[in-house]
Amino acid sequence: MKYGFARRVHKLKSSAVRDLLKIINQGNIISFAGGLPDDGLFPLEAVENAFDKAFQSGKQALQYAETEGLAPFREAIAERMAKNGIKSSIDDILVTTGSQQAIDLFTRIMFDPGDVVLTENPTYLAALQVFQSYEVDVKPVLSDEQGMIPEDLDNKVKKYNPKAIYVIPTFSNPTGKAWSHERREHLLEIAKKRNVIIFEDDPYGEIKFDDNETFVPIAAMDTEGTHVLYTSTFSKTVVPALRTGWIKGPYQIIRMMAQAKQATDLHTNSLSQHALYHLLRDFDLDSHIKTLRKTYCSRMKIMKELLESINMPGFSYIVPKGGMFFWVSMPDAINVTSLLDEAVKRGVAYVPGAPFYVDKPELNTLRLNYTHSAPDKLKKGMEILTDVFSNTLTNAK
Amino acid sequence: MKYGFARRVHKLKSSAVRDLLKIINQGNIISFAGGLPDDGLFPLEAVENAFDKAFQSGKQALQYAETEGLAPFREAIAERMAKNGIKSSIDDILVTTGSQQAIDLFTRIMFDPGDVVLTENPTYLAALQVFQSYEVDVKPVLSDEQGMIPEDLDNKVKKYNPKAIYVIPTFSNPTGKAWSHERREHLLEIAKKRNVIIFEDDPYGEIKFDDNETFVPIAAMDTEGTHVLYTSTFSKTVVPALRTGWIKGPYQIIRMMAQAKQATDLHTNSLSQHALYHLLRDFDLDSHIKTLRKTYCSRMKIMKELLESINMPGFSYIVPKGGMFFWVSMPDAINVTSLLDEAVKRGVAYVPGAPFYVDKPELNTLRLNYTHSAPDKLKKGMEILTDVFSNTLTNAK
Repeated sequence: MKYGFARRVHKLKSSAVRDLLKIINQGNIISFAGGLPDDGLFPLEAVENAFDKAFQSGKQALQYAETEGLAPFREAIAERMAKNGIKSSIDDILVTTGSQQAIDLFTRIMFDPGDVVLTENPTYLAALQVFQSYEVDVKPVLSDEQGMIPEDLDNKVKKYNPKAIYVIPTFSNPTGKAWSHERREHLLEIAKKRNVIIFEDDPYGEIKFDDNETFVPIAAMDTEGTHVLYTSTFSKTVVPALRTGWIKGPYQIIRMMAQAKQATDLHTNSLSQHALYHLLRDFDLDSHIKTLRKTYCSRMKIMKELLESINMPGFSYIVPKGGMFFWVSMPDAINVTSLLDEAVKRGVAYVPGAPFYVDKPELNTLRLNYTHSAPDKLKKGMEILTDVFSNTLTNAK
Repeated sequence: MKYGFARRVHKLKSSAVRDLLKIINQGNIISFAGGLPDDGLFPLEAVENAFDKAFQSGKQALQYAETEGLAPFREAIAERMAKNGIKSSIDDILVTTGSQQAIDLFTRIMFDPGDVVLTENPTYLAALQVFQSYEVDVKPVLSDEQGMIPEDLDNKVKKYNPKAIYVIPTFSNPTGKAWSHERREHLLEIAKKRNVIIFEDDPYGEIKFDDNETFVPIAAMDTEGTHVLYTSTFSKTVVPALRTGWIKGPYQIIRMMAQAKQATDLHTNSLSQHALYHLLRDFDLDSHIKTLRKTYCSRMKIMKELLESINMPGFSYIVPKGGMFFWVSMPDAINVTSLLDEAVKRGVAYVPGAPFYVDKPELNTLRLNYTHSAPDKLKKGMEILTDVFSNTLTNAK
């Protein structure tokens, strides 16, 4: 039988990253491809203890639950956000099945086919997948190392009258960039002036390398809480398996997202919510995050050192101040997707940058993750990779 | 700020049942409203043991995972389905965040706005919510106690050229009905003849009251595996909190749903998948299900006895052969939504039948759940409710 799919699936491409993960998981490959935290650093004992407490809290923790999320868990989330300057009440918070679902639900309730969202370029590819699957018209805004360029942002807001602006201002995926304070302020200003929603995706904000630097979430600047939706997750700071994130924003939008969530999956795994509630209450998550920062920073430096060893015109990279990724540019002539075969043959994987672009991909870019591999593996993999790169660069001359 | 939502949200109504749950959870009310299993019967020890084993299986169980679901878990699901005559390989199975997500993903990949789905009437209201949220045109097929009436089904398949037919053939929600074997065969026959997908939603099939009766899933009749998508869940047989279900069907459709799932929530909570895998391997789930059958059957009989005590023209109900619900009809003149206030004041809740209808709701119908309340509460609640009903019926004469 030939199956007639909906029009929207023609826009639906499988994530290159996730398909790659399957291949990589099968072999003995050093992977800089995924966006995985290091499982060696998972706070396993804390998570186990938290589940024990969840079980002790009674059978109610195993029953159907409210779509909005467990109320004491939302309170704990509100407290955590308050530490970053984001004010909220539990009614402004919806617990989601990972922050991926927050992007999906928002898009579902906000965008008709042809409505416009502005994004950075490149940007998180699974956000692009969501936008495309709802036939949203994605328009990229020019960026530099400080964030979106104000002139281009202003022009495109005027020209396209977007419903929302999707940004990852703190240690973005894929580029690892952090926006300057001024650019954040400007974005909020234009959003307020033109009544556009900012969707601030912040899975990496906690993973910062310099304790003395501060990156204020745009949601914290939006003191009236009218223009910013803020989403984050426990996938990077606790464990990914629980698929538990949240979104905070204007009540009217959160309420509508909760209604959409009812139809999508009724509610997020409530045993995991109970467990995370206990973990937030009884475990020193901030101290654990400090360990993550230190460890990931030292791995970033190992990777940086080896990238520095490549000294060729046209080869460049952004040194991240936090998060999980290096963004690397090769000379224009080099197609990194073809190069990937060679790298995988030699036992190392990365992700080509192309799928992160809204349009006209820059085929000479790639993303490297430094959080997943232990230092010795990281070093070994980077030695191979820099060799692959150097050979290519030498041959390309 | 005034927020401009997508057109599809105007079709999105909050589920009357789930909103009701919130009120009921706050008060000291005996509830026949939700579709909740009894938490007193949850296999708590088995679930705890299963989580212990999942934790022991290593940190990998807490990492990001494949969208399709944990392979050994899908194998265990395939084995369970095989017992019911449904043949599958793990590639035909997608693990979903509850079977609700299976309905959502299927609708998302299959239906453009205006495409038609045929359903029973009344039918599962959260399926109607999904269809409506994607602007699917839902057309009801006339049914009797045996299932969809063949003539009407044939006519409507011809007339509307539907993309799919959504059915809950075994102990349906809300009516508790079970389709006859002949009607199942007829449905499959017409689906094959006209190339229509059957979406068989089967969360209740395991909860049957007579061991000697057999209800063959339509998916088991579809020996070539080309025309039936079959979804079920562990929410009714293990616990609901884990939000873990699955869908089985033609690889091409399952593959497309997996792609849609990537954009929706990346993958289902993998710690829960690991735990359920261990539970299926080490716990005698079939014996547990036998206990559920026996217990729920005896509660159904308590409810039946009290319903029998109402002997008035125009009052009727369907005696279920399994599942979780009685479907009750009052005389035409009685609006059960108004009557609900009176019932709740006296400490008992039920769900009006209206939201389960595709169109033209029969305002004199209601659904009663008998699985959630322990026998003494069930009896007490039903005594109050039959009193409320009898008073109304007497007054209405």
